[in-house]
Amino acid sequence: MSKAPIIDNLQYANWSDKIFRQMREGNVDAVHVTIAYHENFREMVLNIEQWNRWFEQYPDLIFQGRWASDVDVARQTSRTAIFFGFQNPSPIEDDIGLVEIVHALGARFMQLSYNNQSLLATGCYEAEDPGITRMGKQVIKEMNRVGLVIDMSHSAERSTLEAINLSERPIAITHANPHFWQPALRNKSNEVLKALAESGGMLGFSLYPHHLHGGSNCTLTDFCEMVARTADLIGVQNIGIGSDLCQDQPDSVVEWMRVGRWSKEIDYGEGSKDNAGFPPQPQWFTDNRDMPNLAKGMRQVGFSDADTDLIMGGNWLRFYRDNFVPA
Amino acid sequence: MSKAPIIDNLQYANWSDKIFRQMREGNVDAVHVTIAYHENFREMVLNIEQWNRWFEQYPDLIFQGRWASDVDVARQTSRTAIFFGFQNPSPIEDDIGLVEIVHALGARFMQLSYNNQSLLATGCYEAEDPGITRMGKQVIKEMNRVGLVIDMSHSAERSTLEAINLSERPIAITHANPHFWQPALRNKSNEVLKALAESGGMLGFSLYPHHLHGGSNCTLTDFCEMVARTADLIGVQNIGIGSDLCQDQPDSVVEWMRVGRWSKEIDYGEGSKDNAGFPPQPQWFTDNRDMPNLAKGMRQVGFSDADTDLIMGGNWLRFYRDNFVPA
Repeated sequence: MSKAPIIDNLQYANWSDKIFRQMREGNVDAVHVTIAYHENFREMVLNIEQWNRWFEQYPDLIFQGRWASDVDVARQTSRTAIFFGFQNPSPIEDDIGLVEIVHALGARFMQLSYNNQSLLATGCYEAEDPGITRMGKQVIKEMNRVGLVIDMSHSAERSTLEAINLSERPIAITHANPHFWQPALRNKSNEVLKALAESGGMLGFSLYPHHLHGGSNCTLTDFCEMVARTADLIGVQNIGIGSDLCQDQPDSVVEWMRVGRWSKEIDYGEGSKDNAGFPPQPQWFTDNRDMPNLAKGMRQVGFSDADTDLIMGGNWLRFYRDNFVPA
Repeated sequence: MSKAPIIDNLQYANWSDKIFRQMREGNVDAVHVTIAYHENFREMVLNIEQWNRWFEQYPDLIFQGRWASDVDVARQTSRTAIFFGFQNPSPIEDDIGLVEIVHALGARFMQLSYNNQSLLATGCYEAEDPGITRMGKQVIKEMNRVGLVIDMSHSAERSTLEAINLSERPIAITHANPHFWQPALRNKSNEVLKALAESGGMLGFSLYPHHLHGGSNCTLTDFCEMVARTADLIGVQNIGIGSDLCQDQPDSVVEWMRVGRWSKEIDYGEGSKDNAGFPPQPQWFTDNRDMPNLAKGMRQVGFSDADTDLIMGGNWLRFYRDNFVPA
């Protein structure tokens, strides 16, 4: 285990042995993968069953990560630990008891809302944000108790600030960038970023083109300079990568992510009618093999080797150690 | 950990703090509890959620057992480890992928059938027993792989013999007695008992009155002499306790166990129209505090202290160590 850990804390690819091999080529020790957007409990379990088949098929490449120590196992055995997470609380339905159940099944991150109002919190595309709901307050306590991390990547501002405040353990924004750099609705205000960091939370920088300054044409230097500005704002201890890589997905999947079953009309989310599908990735980050590019870019904008290691995985590993276990 | 482990490998009580305290008074280190008779997957998960509430409410008395090492934890901390099991494969529905999911949630025993024909095997009340089904063969392989123990307590003869044969790991009959002692339909033939033991399997002796010679009036000596005869037949290494204690249950529960949702007519199972409810326990085994009575009875019929320790928990503990972990 001479090298520092490399962790990508958000991907939702069209998984295949090709991608699992690329994780190994990129020396990626752990990936937090999305296993639910709009799925109810039983449908989410079917997605775990699909992952279990991949774990059986590719035992030399991947295995299910449950604890921070599994990142060490990954490094010792040259494999990638796959950690599960939900971008929506739909898998817990209206049942707080499912929080502990999904944790037992390995879920480690759960967004309290995805774009829309949920039973727990408001999503970033709603016109009004009344904050954390009655059930939301109860679920935050339960997530704290069992070790399921609150993720507010797709939530609205007030709900996010309230979640940070209400949660007794640090929360995460697994995949988003600062609003000061690219004023996308999904990117986060300085107020949110500061409150997040002050409570020990983590921001994962997104490589999704709609979150990047210049979109698909964003340069590596521009991206890494934004990371440096964020480190100046909230500290180098509170940042990592959450690439939001949606590799090899057909456009039908982005429609599922955006519309699920909640609307009969198409919602274009961060896209538009003329640009409805997945935008192309910047050429310097197209798959897991490009993770070393990011590390190189960080050093080129002046990060020390030690700080680069923290950003590329060390910070997430520390966060895993502190936050995946029951309180 | 001076004393030997005490394990009751089948109970289905109307759980309460009173019963959990009686487990402690009886020095019971582990209990395998039934959490499904006819429940589908989601309904079984609701039952786990109820157990999770009890684990939260009574942390000084009970906790969820997942591995054999949890029996050691129980002994070290003076608590009782609760292991989950199903008396029917209904929780895996028609989905083999749920075998691994329920194991992840802590299920450690699953009957392939409960009285009736299931998707996997035949129950002991069917007129015909065509043996293990196509899905049954696949599920046996999968249970072997993940470490979910096959239980044939309520299955028919041919299905039971085939399961013993098909399974690459030892199976269990968690709660039944030898047919030679009490010719109940649920009790097991010498052929089944010998095949079970030859493959390293375990028989848990039942204290349910319908399985006892003399019913509720069975004497402790008669019971323990039956245990001795069984040890002569199949070896002292392959026997333990699976009391089938259904303490404090209302008669409506025995109706749920027998009829579930599969019939509009009442089925009396081991009872009868005139004796439809739960029969009274023999006075020497009415709750967990009577476990030491059994040990005393074993010694009185000639078992050595060492063999008594094996029967009262040592054998189950060895079986747990070998069979709860993935292959």
